[in-house]
Amino acid sequence: MCQLLGMNCNTPTDIVFSFTGFSLRGGLTDEHQDGWGIAFFEGAGVRHLVDHQAASRSPLADLIKVHPIKSNNVIAHIRKATQGKVALENCHPFIRECWGLNWVFAHNGDLPGFMPVLDGCYQPIGNTDSERAFCYLMQELRRHFGAVAPTLAELTAIVRTLCQEISTYGTFNIMLSNGLALLAHCSTKLHYIIRQYPFTTAHLSDQELSVDFTQVTTPQDKVAVIATVPLTDNEAWHAFMPGELKIFVDGTCHV
Amino acid sequence: MCQLLGMNCNTPTDIVFSFTGFSLRGGLTDEHQDGWGIAFFEGAGVRHLVDHQAASRSPLADLIKVHPIKSNNVIAHIRKATQGKVALENCHPFIRECWGLNWVFAHNGDLPGFMPVLDGCYQPIGNTDSERAFCYLMQELRRHFGAVAPTLAELTAIVRTLCQEISTYGTFNIMLSNGLALLAHCSTKLHYIIRQYPFTTAHLSDQELSVDFTQVTTPQDKVAVIATVPLTDNEAWHAFMPGELKIFVDGTCHV
Repeated sequence: MCQLLGMNCNTPTDIVFSFTGFSLRGGLTDEHQDGWGIAFFEGAGVRHLVDHQAASRSPLADLIKVHPIKSNNVIAHIRKATQGKVALENCHPFIRECWGLNWVFAHNGDLPGFMPVLDGCYQPIGNTDSERAFCYLMQELRRHFGAVAPTLAELTAIVRTLCQEISTYGTFNIMLSNGLALLAHCSTKLHYIIRQYPFTTAHLSDQELSVDFTQVTTPQDKVAVIATVPLTDNEAWHAFMPGELKIFVDGTCHV
Repeated sequence: MCQLLGMNCNTPTDIVFSFTGFSLRGGLTDEHQDGWGIAFFEGAGVRHLVDHQAASRSPLADLIKVHPIKSNNVIAHIRKATQGKVALENCHPFIRECWGLNWVFAHNGDLPGFMPVLDGCYQPIGNTDSERAFCYLMQELRRHFGAVAPTLAELTAIVRTLCQEISTYGTFNIMLSNGLALLAHCSTKLHYIIRQYPFTTAHLSDQELSVDFTQVTTPQDKVAVIATVPLTDNEAWHAFMPGELKIFVDGTCHV
């Protein structure tokens, strides 16, 4: 299995605090050491970093902590291989282009027996069930909406239906972002928190580290953090219900 | 304008020496300071790093020099913006998936008036003529070969025709790789060198730095390096002829 981390905000924010705790679970405080990856949206562009080393021992992961990258939408993943060998092409998040936007996807769970018919517009590069599900998702979105990009409401409705369909094959906890919104679907386990004014001090679960958010924010800031397991031990995280799809835009949770 | 750097080898090789000289041209020994990028194939996967900072001042570029990444196919680019703003989505190399392979592309030159009809299977994310040309190239490859990936000979023939067509709009020096081969097309300026047994010592043009390749190679190694302008001042680089497309496989130049 794997763990997921996402961030969606109304102002470019660095993810150093959350990523510090999260990356320790990649081989140090937890067993997810078969690669990791992170994608930061920056405007329409994406910084996409993947590595088949354990996140807790990766120079690239260290760089992210030393040189904070600010972003409105981030998806990160640490992997414990279940399907697919330990290789770069099997590291989440995966990325594809549709309607002139980057689409980034990461998955936690297994989908035994999920072998959808892929028409060729999106083909997996690696051999994970996760990338196969992502290709199917993108294919169906493209098939449904054709040449015209959907509104967020239209997108949400179809993604919800597709998540329900794919979930019948197994566990499908996912995050999907096009840089404008972050969609998160829970099969079994996913939590989120919205940090906003009045900000407080948060303390990591995985390391003796706190940050006083009153010192690094403005009263207008809104930051949603979504993770498989809560990253802090002194804040009230909300658990997703199984089967729920939530949409995060500008640090606000819709539905 | 911009500068291009490519490497194709028969054994995974690090590009630190060439990249060190090349990255200095990104704002220090030359004026290409509007972003840079590099893509390293690793099996079917790609490490794709782009940055809108000058390569000569980028922490990410420093990381590549300190933690060498070995690869059989590398494409790098430093940018001096002509079309398209300085932004992450306009940094080369660009990347798309086709036939379950990653395709990586970088371009040097301008293509005024090149506005091909794009059917939607590949859309530009940024607003450069380069990404538009890449999307057109991939669209035409997909249209030509359908669901079945071409052989290298078939691919070469079509890429050659497409390069000739696009070159009628302006300057189209490019590198394209799918991780199996590296194709390089010259409109105006491109050079290459094949390093193989017996290896010698090479000295950078842009910095007082030499490397004795006899110390870091085996007699079987073959490494092709392709660059806009030769990177060393004591080796015999071959100039491409205008209009030439060359194919590099396992460190060997074909045609």
